[in-house]
This record gives sequence, structure tokens and C-alpha cells, in this order.
Amino acid sequence: MTALAFQDAYPDHVSHCYGCGRLNPEGLQIKTRWDGEESVTHFRPRPEHMAIPGFVYGGLIASLIDCHGTGTAAAAMYRAEGRALDTLPAFRFVTASLQVDFVRPTPIDTELEVRGRVTERSDRRVVVSATVSANGVVTAKGTVVAVPLPKSFEPNCP
Amino acid sequence: MTALAFQDAYPDHVSHCYGCGRLNPEGLQIKTRWDGEESVTHFRPRPEHMAIPGFVYGGLIASLIDCHGTGTAAAAMYRAEGRALDTLPAFRFVTASLQVDFVRPTPIDTELEVRGRVTERSDRRVVVSATVSANGVVTAKGTVVAVPLPKSFEPNCP
Repeated sequence: MTALAFQDAYPDHVSHCYGCGRLNPEGLQIKTRWDGEESVTHFRPRPEHMAIPGFVYGGLIASLIDCHGTGTAAAAMYRAEGRALDTLPAFRFVTASLQVDFVRPTPIDTELEVRGRVTERSDRRVVVSATVSANGVVTAKGTVVAVPLPKSFEPNCP
Repeated sequence: MTALAFQDAYPDHVSHCYGCGRLNPEGLQIKTRWDGEESVTHFRPRPEHMAIPGFVYGGLIASLIDCHGTGTAAAAMYRAEGRALDTLPAFRFVTASLQVDFVRPTPIDTELEVRGRVTERSDRRVVVSATVSANGVVTAKGTVVAVPLPKSFEPNCP
């Protein structure tokens, strides 16, 4: 049995993100799961996601690391509390800062693997370090500082 | 008369980028121009570019800053040489590193303005500092370290 993806446990009202929301039919709909202490996302770029023909554009790499990072942050909080991903209250994180180093060109004609590791965790923020690999070779490295979804993100907040 | 956009002067074979290539029909096709010492891109997010309903997802912000930065880097090189954008040899940059701080949620139902400024320039790299604003309020800040398109990006290089 495949474990529930982090993103598949997000409550409906926060599942519309272009990068990771299962309710965004146009979006990337990435799926992230634990592999021991690391979180893993596999994603196959679409043909249009090119930079130069043959290679992935940087914005996609940034998007993958970003949503992989916020997903890992939420999952890490559940894990710290010993709770399943689909239990309440739900954790949902957004990105405070994102840093990406493009180590080498990322080929577009293969599945990409994003691997993340929590390097810092508190109630106020979770830091996730990630790599993107293609055919077993790391092509990008990144860091996401994730913070709990603030009230200001709620469309109807005062 | 509106000045030629940086991206409209890219040679055809490097004009397929999802973020900024005029030959990518699925892409964002951003257009950047000089406004004095600053470079400016205006972009209206698509409805699907949401994070939480009402707000733009981080990957789009990162993509805008990224492609705005590489475009500004190229344009800065032409300017330094006193050459028009559509003269040869062409400059084309890719991103070595990208850093984005998400200052506050970015509303999705308005045009975004990206403004960039070159903070460092040499033949080997150009650093561009940028902001993203919505309705006159800065929602994100970023830095792009851009480097000339390396040979390894050429699909047929040995």
C-alpha cells in the first residue's frame, strides 16, 4: 500500500495551490511522501516546462522545491506530534523565503526526484533543505523557510 | 512607441523558456523593459496561479523574478556596450542562484509589477535585485545571480 501523500491530506480549502493542490486541475499536483527521514517527490516535467530546448526552466525547479518544502514542513509537524496526516487540527505552511542554487542544467525528458530534509523545526517555522535530481545526478539545491499559514492569507479575514 | 522588450530580442533558439520565451505558447511570456535605471515587467496572473484562493502561489513569484532577472542581466550587458538589444552577438543569461523573500501574500486579481536593478555586473555574472508589487505594495523581494548561458545548456554539445 502506498502511503498517503502529504498534499492529499491538506483540507479542501487549502488544496488549490498551483504547485501542490489536488483541487487545481491546471496545476502541477506534486505528491510528497516520507522515505525514512527524508521526504521525496517525483515529478515528470511537461514538454512546455523548458528553459532552452532539452532542459527545465528555473521557475519549475523553484516551484517544486517550494511546494515540496511546505509539504515537508507540515508533515514534520504531524510526525513530531505522533499524528497521522489526515487528523485534525490540520497543519498547512507557506513559504517565508526560498533559496535555489542551480548546480547544472536539468534535463526535461526524465522524471525528477526532489528530496528534502528538515534542518530546523519549531512551532513558528520549519526549515527544509532539498535537492532536485535527474537520472541520479543533483541538478539543483534549495532551502525553504516555511511558516504556518498566516491569518492574512484567509480571503475573508478582517 | 513602446520600446522593444528584452525578451523579444532573444534569438529564436533561446526563446522557448516557459517563463519568458516568446515562442512558448503555453508559457508566461513575460516582457521586460527599461524604466531609467530600473527594469520593469508587468504580469497578470492566471486564475489557476493561486496558492490559497485569492493569492498567487510562490512558484509564480519565483518564476517572474527569475526570468525578469536573466532578462535584465542580458539587457544590462547590451547597455554597457552601447548596443541595441537586437544586435549581435546576442547576450543570453541563465540563473546560477535565486533567492526570494515572500514579504506578504500577493493578491491574484490584479496586475503585478516586477522591478529590477543591477547591483553587480561583470563578464562572468550579473546580479539583479528585484521586487514584486501588487497595487503599489511590495509583496516579495528577490535576488538573481545570472551567468552567461553555458555551453552545457546546448543540447548538442559534446
